[in-house]
Amino acid sequence: MKQMELLYEGKSKQIFKTDNPDNVVVRFKDDITAFYDIKRANILNKGRLTCDISSMVLGYLNDNGINTHFIERVDDDGQLCRVVEHVPVEVIVRNVVAGSMAKRLDMEEGIVPENTIFDLCLRRSDLGDPLINDHHAVALGLLSYEELSELYEMSAKINSLVTELYNKAGITVVDFKIEFGRATDGSLVLADELSPDTCRLWDKATGERMDKDRFRRDLGSVGETYEEVAKRLHNALK
Amino acid sequence: MKQMELLYEGKSKQIFKTDNPDNVVVRFKDDITAFYDIKRANILNKGRLTCDISSMVLGYLNDNGINTHFIERVDDDGQLCRVVEHVPVEVIVRNVVAGSMAKRLDMEEGIVPENTIFDLCLRRSDLGDPLINDHHAVALGLLSYEELSELYEMSAKINSLVTELYNKAGITVVDFKIEFGRATDGSLVLADELSPDTCRLWDKATGERMDKDRFRRDLGSVGETYEEVAKRLHNALK
Repeated sequence: MKQMELLYEGKSKQIFKTDNPDNVVVRFKDDITAFYDIKRANILNKGRLTCDISSMVLGYLNDNGINTHFIERVDDDGQLCRVVEHVPVEVIVRNVVAGSMAKRLDMEEGIVPENTIFDLCLRRSDLGDPLINDHHAVALGLLSYEELSELYEMSAKINSLVTELYNKAGITVVDFKIEFGRATDGSLVLADELSPDTCRLWDKATGERMDKDRFRRDLGSVGETYEEVAKRLHNALK
Repeated sequence: MKQMELLYEGKSKQIFKTDNPDNVVVRFKDDITAFYDIKRANILNKGRLTCDISSMVLGYLNDNGINTHFIERVDDDGQLCRVVEHVPVEVIVRNVVAGSMAKRLDMEEGIVPENTIFDLCLRRSDLGDPLINDHHAVALGLLSYEELSELYEMSAKINSLVTELYNKAGITVVDFKIEFGRATDGSLVLADELSPDTCRLWDKATGERMDKDRFRRDLGSVGETYEEVAKRLHNALK
């Protein structure tokens, strides 16, 4: 595999072409942003740590029957991934009420509902990535009702697996955001990172936040906490 | 039936106790409001007209197997209705993209999607009656997943019937908002008006707006247009 020209650069990742047209290299950056780029910083080693954590989690999902874009980690901050056609929605899976849901519906953070909550949002940062429902996604021509069922089924399985893995690391998976793509055969594939940048993770023992909320809410020790998450996951996977 | 003391007064309706504890009288006011009460007016005869139209539509739904709170029209602006326990959600049924959906998702007004769109919103005017999904409604303890299925099934049937009725009146039902209640036996009941105050109605021949958008958008002739809707419905029901 040979890394070639830059195809895309986002807030926290770069995507490079490779000599195989079916694959790309995804590089994780040290940049961290929040509130639609209003708040920005650079956290030493964050690229390496999110690449490490996301590689562990996606490898684990691959091993447990989830179709993901992840092939392998290639170096400190790089992953080899399959090329997929991105679907412009995101699914937020919530086991505990927190963040935007708590604010939007005037609920207390930390409430544990009896059901798992799946939010479907349209990826339109100019509109604030608004919550939509299945009917909107179909009317917008993004997904069929059948594909949406599959999306929720995959999201529920991913939630079970990720929750189980983090349980072994003494961490509660409060919520996480995932995006999907279509593989060349049309099948839906998880095409996203799963790291403390995209998950809410609370220490089971202390309740301490072990995710990007440390940055959003100025709680400090962002890098050290990500390092701790990586260490615990390595132990959990031993 | 004897009308007794006022139980509740809202923006466009009053509800009175009767000598039968299972029934109330609902009175339709001439007041019209929009944008969360920022815009207000008083339209001569609007109470009589919305009572007339809503009585025709709900009577027609009753006759066609939909459980509604409506028993009978008692006078110009009054309906006798069953007492129900209100469920604090509203369903917006959309056949054509317009209003808040068009704005929220940056879609053009007038697009006719292939699917019918059902929006579930939380009745919390202090939060702007936000769009929610089934998982939120369950987590908030408002409805079970089974009740939500029933709600959508009822909403789809109501949409078919109301669309068919208005077709005969030369009017397109663009969208409408409905609320539900639980009867004493726990069953879900349509418990709302269905009038130009709560529906978007476009003249099939001219595309002219025949609903509250005439007031919202300062198009004039609000009362005259409501009168025309009433007249056409009377003819359609002959």
